[in-house]
Amino acid sequence: MERVLVDMDEVMADPMGRMIAWYESNYGRKVVYDKMENGSWVKGFPEEHQVMVRQRLHEPGFFRDLPVMKDCQEVIEAINKKYELFIVSAATEFPNSLKDKLEWLGDYFPFLSWRQVVLCGDKRLVTGDYMIDDHPRNLVHFKGKQYLYSAPHNMGVTEFHRVNDWKEVAEIFL
Amino acid sequence: MERVLVDMDEVMADPMGRMIAWYESNYGRKVVYDKMENGSWVKGFPEEHQVMVRQRLHEPGFFRDLPVMKDCQEVIEAINKKYELFIVSAATEFPNSLKDKLEWLGDYFPFLSWRQVVLCGDKRLVTGDYMIDDHPRNLVHFKGKQYLYSAPHNMGVTEFHRVNDWKEVAEIFL
Repeated sequence: MERVLVDMDEVMADPMGRMIAWYESNYGRKVVYDKMENGSWVKGFPEEHQVMVRQRLHEPGFFRDLPVMKDCQEVIEAINKKYELFIVSAATEFPNSLKDKLEWLGDYFPFLSWRQVVLCGDKRLVTGDYMIDDHPRNLVHFKGKQYLYSAPHNMGVTEFHRVNDWKEVAEIFL
Repeated sequence: MERVLVDMDEVMADPMGRMIAWYESNYGRKVVYDKMENGSWVKGFPEEHQVMVRQRLHEPGFFRDLPVMKDCQEVIEAINKKYELFIVSAATEFPNSLKDKLEWLGDYFPFLSWRQVVLCGDKRLVTGDYMIDDHPRNLVHFKGKQYLYSAPHNMGVTEFHRVNDWKEVAEIFL
């Protein structure tokens, strides 16, 4: 059975979406998507608020009730039947996110087991046949087939096969 | 730089030791080390208390203040200077342990970064040149050099190069 590694943030879950909704409603200002290019989505926020936005990622609960990406549940469930699936999240930078992330997976992907989850700091360690991730830095060292999941911060990247949504993932894998 | 993967429980930290001390002082009964052979150390506890012992592993805080194995800190610090070191713990079965484990590492191994930690359910995913682990099930799939760290539950295992303590680890790696 071939092994598929899937990233969580900006691929299965939408922390950026949640942060933007919260920020725009609380601060009455807009994020600038163009500024996210070639970096992190935090750069799309006004400079004076970026430290605060980063800090919020460290708060308990932030990752607990994130929106799930459209069509992700059905496609992940089908991939899980056909492949050896692992969810790999670079999460150890955020100690308060770890349990939240497991519980979030339990809510939206109850068919996955704790055996299928990897919470790490550096994805160079993990091996598989396919990796779906929104960060070029995670894909670049991966020896299998690399799929870049589209996000505002990676729109200028051209080195990887791009997938724009979970319907496209389904077309490739199912 | 060669990559070394080191397990936490029963290798760096001593959850078994903590559990036995707590159990024997609270229940006035002894664990039987011979019964741990070829299994988990929980099997050394009287049968009627094994469910309770397992349950205790799921409690918040259990992994937060474990004893650190003798000589481990100095040897890990030296290995960290000479190799690319990662701490790999099969921890996602215990969601309450995740943050505790990161904080415990911060206490005893402050020179390690969150980038060097992997909390997972299945160690077949991780690659490296050397793995030190007390569980044959983790070592058996590892492609690099395998070192079995001695524990009461693995004393009958003969397939791997055995290390009995951190002084022996130092002799091999330093």
